[in-house]
Amino acid sequence: MKKAIGIFDSGLGGLTVLKVLAQNFPHESFVYLGDIARLPYGNKSPETIRKYGDQILRFLKDQGVKAMVIACNSASTVYLGEKSFEGIPLLNVIEPGARAALENGTDKIAVLGTSATIRSHAYEKTIKALSPKTSVVEIACPLFVPLVEEGVVHNEITDLVIKRYLETVKSEKIETVILGCTHYPVLADDIRKYLGNVNLVESGEVLTTELRALNFVTYQSTRQIRICITDVTDHFERLAKELMYPETLGPLEKVIL
Amino acid sequence: MKKAIGIFDSGLGGLTVLKVLAQNFPHESFVYLGDIARLPYGNKSPETIRKYGDQILRFLKDQGVKAMVIACNSASTVYLGEKSFEGIPLLNVIEPGARAALENGTDKIAVLGTSATIRSHAYEKTIKALSPKTSVVEIACPLFVPLVEEGVVHNEITDLVIKRYLETVKSEKIETVILGCTHYPVLADDIRKYLGNVNLVESGEVLTTELRALNFVTYQSTRQIRICITDVTDHFERLAKELMYPETLGPLEKVIL
Repeated sequence: MKKAIGIFDSGLGGLTVLKVLAQNFPHESFVYLGDIARLPYGNKSPETIRKYGDQILRFLKDQGVKAMVIACNSASTVYLGEKSFEGIPLLNVIEPGARAALENGTDKIAVLGTSATIRSHAYEKTIKALSPKTSVVEIACPLFVPLVEEGVVHNEITDLVIKRYLETVKSEKIETVILGCTHYPVLADDIRKYLGNVNLVESGEVLTTELRALNFVTYQSTRQIRICITDVTDHFERLAKELMYPETLGPLEKVIL
Repeated sequence: MKKAIGIFDSGLGGLTVLKVLAQNFPHESFVYLGDIARLPYGNKSPETIRKYGDQILRFLKDQGVKAMVIACNSASTVYLGEKSFEGIPLLNVIEPGARAALENGTDKIAVLGTSATIRSHAYEKTIKALSPKTSVVEIACPLFVPLVEEGVVHNEITDLVIKRYLETVKSEKIETVILGCTHYPVLADDIRKYLGNVNLVESGEVLTTELRALNFVTYQSTRQIRICITDVTDHFERLAKELMYPETLGPLEKVIL
């Protein structure tokens, strides 16, 4: 009996999460679904995101997974507080991220995310519920995803865009910053270059802790990592390789939802 | 009997075309469909674009239009050479754009577009078919759309991104540049600032000539402009107003395809 862990994202950004989980759970199998045909979710309404999300969770369930991770912050905001989907344990990235940020013991936390994530105030609400005194600064960084997708990183355009969004974080000397979008870990070095020595909270690490707590039985001796996408272009093949590096990648599978 | 002109785009970029057509045809009615729920098309495969495009053209047909304009370069590449859809005259932006560029009589033409448009070589093929001696330089500018969508224009980030993509156009002194994406007219001033006095070919003007040639009967005394979108968020309400300025806008209609 083979039971994998299911992961979904609107596109390939969630591969930064898959990479970390694959390294931390070397004996588990994974099925990833990137909804490339309909990305980005960051500008879509909650109703549309739920419609697409439910289709994807049902697809993952049909693959026989034992747990499902929504590795997409925009989608996570819609499924907040839901612990299972049709009987399968369901994790999102918001709640673990908020808890991990609070473990740094700071009184002020910055949250970076897409427009949809920030507009939902999902991180702020979750942090405030756990620690009402913590002040939360939320910043929408809508250009970060296209920069990462186009490989425009580690240069002066990236530096100017980072400065545009993060001037407040720097001037207010905020020490804990949640990278509230799975694309953003690719910019971690550039962000550190601008902000100096801050705690950057990334989804992959915080989800590792959450998944460990589920106490899985691991069935398979040889693990399998499947990456399914709803559309295929050369661009995404290349981007997938870059995001998963140094992990090697099998061929991407196209699925129709 | 009311018969409008139908226009479709993957998102709201096509409003730059609608604005020009609405000004040039002050007695015609228009129905616009922006497929916001599934944008951008620029990274999608031809098969996916055709599937979505056919749904949209059928929607426009159901609204009783007398002609349909594909005001989306990525979608136009897929419908190249098709003069009608289920009996309704169909125009795309590629062929008129290519003809208009050649009217400037230059021996070298630059084409700017999304990754999908450039990858298709649709402009190059169309130009070469009309004028085999003309040399064509095609440049994918994937960051232009997010810059326009986020209102990051007329500043030093825009300048750096323009320089990144258009250095060749400048160094090769190319005098005719096709703005092969409906978002790009918003950047026209920034592009002129960098390139100097060049001929920028924009879709709205070239489509005006094409539509005039169809010799419509204009039925209505009071014209109506409907803007339909497949998803609604505040972001797009604001962007629609900006793109149509100084034209005023009625409420956006949400449709499900």
